[in-house]
Amino acid sequence: MERAALTRRGLLIGIGAAGGAGAMYAAMGALGLAPSEQDKAFTPPRQGDFTLRGKGSAKVVILGAGVAGLTAAYELGKAGYDCTVLEAREKAGGRNLTLRGGDRLPELNGPVQQAAFGEGQYFNAGPGRIAPWMLTLDYCRELGVPVEVFVNHNAMAYVHTGGRTMRVRAARADLYGYVAELLAKATDRGALDRAVSAQDRERLLDFLRRFGDLGPKMDYAGSARRGFATYPGLAEGTLDAPLSLTDVLAAGTGRLVLNDFGHDMATPMFQPVGGMDAIVVKLTEAVGADRIRTGAKVTGITTLADGVEVVWDGGSIKADYCVAALPPHVMAKIPHNLGAQVTAALKTPVPVAAGKIGLEYDRRWWETEDRIYGGVSETDLDITHIWYPSHGYHSGRGVLVGYYNTERDAELYGVLSPEDRRRRALTQGKKIHGEKYRQGVLADVSIAWHRQPHIEGAWVRWPAFDSSFTLLQRPAGRVYFAGDWLTQLIAWQAGAMESARAAVTQLHQRAVRSA
Amino acid sequence: MERAALTRRGLLIGIGAAGGAGAMYAAMGALGLAPSEQDKAFTPPRQGDFTLRGKGSAKVVILGAGVAGLTAAYELGKAGYDCTVLEAREKAGGRNLTLRGGDRLPELNGPVQQAAFGEGQYFNAGPGRIAPWMLTLDYCRELGVPVEVFVNHNAMAYVHTGGRTMRVRAARADLYGYVAELLAKATDRGALDRAVSAQDRERLLDFLRRFGDLGPKMDYAGSARRGFATYPGLAEGTLDAPLSLTDVLAAGTGRLVLNDFGHDMATPMFQPVGGMDAIVVKLTEAVGADRIRTGAKVTGITTLADGVEVVWDGGSIKADYCVAALPPHVMAKIPHNLGAQVTAALKTPVPVAAGKIGLEYDRRWWETEDRIYGGVSETDLDITHIWYPSHGYHSGRGVLVGYYNTERDAELYGVLSPEDRRRRALTQGKKIHGEKYRQGVLADVSIAWHRQPHIEGAWVRWPAFDSSFTLLQRPAGRVYFAGDWLTQLIAWQAGAMESARAAVTQLHQRAVRSA
Repeated sequence: MERAALTRRGLLIGIGAAGGAGAMYAAMGALGLAPSEQDKAFTPPRQGDFTLRGKGSAKVVILGAGVAGLTAAYELGKAGYDCTVLEAREKAGGRNLTLRGGDRLPELNGPVQQAAFGEGQYFNAGPGRIAPWMLTLDYCRELGVPVEVFVNHNAMAYVHTGGRTMRVRAARADLYGYVAELLAKATDRGALDRAVSAQDRERLLDFLRRFGDLGPKMDYAGSARRGFATYPGLAEGTLDAPLSLTDVLAAGTGRLVLNDFGHDMATPMFQPVGGMDAIVVKLTEAVGADRIRTGAKVTGITTLADGVEVVWDGGSIKADYCVAALPPHVMAKIPHNLGAQVTAALKTPVPVAAGKIGLEYDRRWWETEDRIYGGVSETDLDITHIWYPSHGYHSGRGVLVGYYNTERDAELYGVLSPEDRRRRALTQGKKIHGEKYRQGVLADVSIAWHRQPHIEGAWVRWPAFDSSFTLLQRPAGRVYFAGDWLTQLIAWQAGAMESARAAVTQLHQRAVRSA
Repeated sequence: MERAALTRRGLLIGIGAAGGAGAMYAAMGALGLAPSEQDKAFTPPRQGDFTLRGKGSAKVVILGAGVAGLTAAYELGKAGYDCTVLEAREKAGGRNLTLRGGDRLPELNGPVQQAAFGEGQYFNAGPGRIAPWMLTLDYCRELGVPVEVFVNHNAMAYVHTGGRTMRVRAARADLYGYVAELLAKATDRGALDRAVSAQDRERLLDFLRRFGDLGPKMDYAGSARRGFATYPGLAEGTLDAPLSLTDVLAAGTGRLVLNDFGHDMATPMFQPVGGMDAIVVKLTEAVGADRIRTGAKVTGITTLADGVEVVWDGGSIKADYCVAALPPHVMAKIPHNLGAQVTAALKTPVPVAAGKIGLEYDRRWWETEDRIYGGVSETDLDITHIWYPSHGYHSGRGVLVGYYNTERDAELYGVLSPEDRRRRALTQGKKIHGEKYRQGVLADVSIAWHRQPHIEGAWVRWPAFDSSFTLLQRPAGRVYFAGDWLTQLIAWQAGAMESARAAVTQLHQRAVRSA
């Protein structure tokens, strides 16, 4: 979720993009957060780690069957812990939500939508992509969830700014071309003689020529890299003229062509085959579906000297430990005896709004007509992005993500009826793709994460990673907290998994000591 | 094939990369090659186009069951032409060659290799990737060949130059960072005041800050975009320091991180599921396997007033027309009566050497240890590239392409025995991946395309697209030529397909006129 990436780096640590890496190193040290390799090492609890007391198993109640809760139950289960997962929603998975034909989607203060997608079609309403370095991919391997490439960057996709639509590849070629040309000129004029040695200058010019596809006079006059008006075949292709420097800078195009530059957004990315919830399905299987009680809303949490008691709307449960894997703002509303500091800390992170719409079309015109196979078009419209499906290429139908927006844009769409969301999304998308964008729509479902029952936010933003953050990384009595919101991978499933592992490690060490 | 891309743009039209786009426009006009939309339009021959004479079908003999020959037979078959395809090799496909366990690979003046890959493993010895704008993808759709993403660019892959190995993402981040910083400095110093307006300057600086991930003083001091020494989890990740400008320029790294900039190499690219030869299989099915005679070496071609006669080593065949879809240097050696000019033209393009090795490993260490899922590592070693498989992620085994080299490097490997090729490839790859690169190799097969019987070259290079090129785009008597070598898409299957369509169109127009 690239907005999340900006949020994390920009707003959360209050430094980020604007501050540069140097500032980040410093801040990390100041907060005592500089991680070590040790943080990444994880040894799953094993049956043989200790002889569990009593009936041979400590009992753990886990609040929330999202990715953090399920991962905790899965890892604890490896050592034979007796886990019960309480989930307030109708099904497990939390924000890992894939919608298919027949699925119901209720909304706070809104109508219940019924997805009417065709057979085999799906819409990842929550997370949609996995970076190769993320723990999520390790769990896919361990659980046997097959993965395929999620096309995040597509040179053939569009960038739409200031009313102008152009291919990403053309925008990049022009920007790179002018940057290379300008720097070559400045170098030639000796403007950088103090900064760059004579030897480096020659090498730099060689790089700039290649980087910008410059002509013999180190000028940029367009490039095949922009793509062609007519692609080569029997004869050479025909090229469109490049935009002027002024035009390519004017529309803010440059901001929208860097989507794959971040460490979490770089090519390639991955997705489970058949829908993101394949991870939920496999985790549920491994945990045991009978251990997960859905439709169970927790109403009270009491930590005791010898255990923990959790009350839910259908009964109560006593356990040795609790893992609270709920969103912090939801958890904060549940009566508990963990102290005012914990409540204050839980209330610190701010929920962020985000929304998505899935639009099923009767034909894959983006492939046959626009030659866009997967990827994302970036816009300065309130839809922000259009995602093209990275699966089912050349099949009959397909589901686009017609918007994926956050904050103010998401709130704007969130207050609309599902019909009005669709209408608005189609009107905006038409500006990029023309009239065909409004034709042949078979079904649609839209989600406003900040209006989802028992979730109430797409993710959270910490005003600062201060003592509230570190407080909740440790247990309160016998209650351990877990969730992406307790990591530096907010809005990523990998964060939920890392956090679950940390909670499991702490809980298990204590259980072994007291066994 | 990126070397091919450079060849086409650099050497073939004699202008290319060094000349820039401006020069290319001019050259296109001068050669009369500027294509029109009309060139791209293709109407397949249909049964109803005319009532074919005699038994209702004109007879066509097609020389070569490579992609051009098969495409011609397929398109002609749509109108009921009676096609016979003569193929000198043991099986159809030509350079579209996928090797699996049990396959034999003979070589001119070399031993026969036997591929010993495990069940389900394969190695695309020829073409491996398809750009989304290419005709190849349309044929995949039309023929029902499922496609998946071929990861061509991978930020996690390595660039190895001057003895230094670094992640592609780190090399790019450093190069972009310094380019942005230097241009920002030059702009600040007023070096570009004549070239850039005041308004553009502010916008340019904004872009440069984002493009280079610069700090508040517009300096580059490293970036999360480089990737992390320890990736973020519970705590922020730890960053390695960036290379110095001198270091990042010194090794020529910049030349090797632009692999996806070209119009034919941009992300995303595609491959047929299960092996490139799925295209051959489906074309063969559509043409009818009984129409393709393999092991049939053509020894004479005679164009006559009323037809064409082709002699092969097992007999002769008379037909109304012939489509010669052989490599030009192979065709040139076959006795014919098409005239000295045709022979001279066929001898004009120069065959290019290229080689590949497929290495099957017992585990996918590149995924589990290096976090490289598909993609290409670029090197300045004689192996040039290492390709990681874009399929079978997380499965037990996998086949790497241990080298894909051309010209001198390919000739160097070509003269070695298969064992020595493997040994050398493993020694080179170890420089990047360490000792594990030489461990767990289960099987290997290497191909030297310039030593392949009846092919004798990976592709060709035209010294110039002169009258020889245009001569062969027209029929000689009743013989039509086809192949990627007759297009501006040399070394791409799309070229073979475009050329086949052009030959079919010309042949069909003539057949309709004379019907």
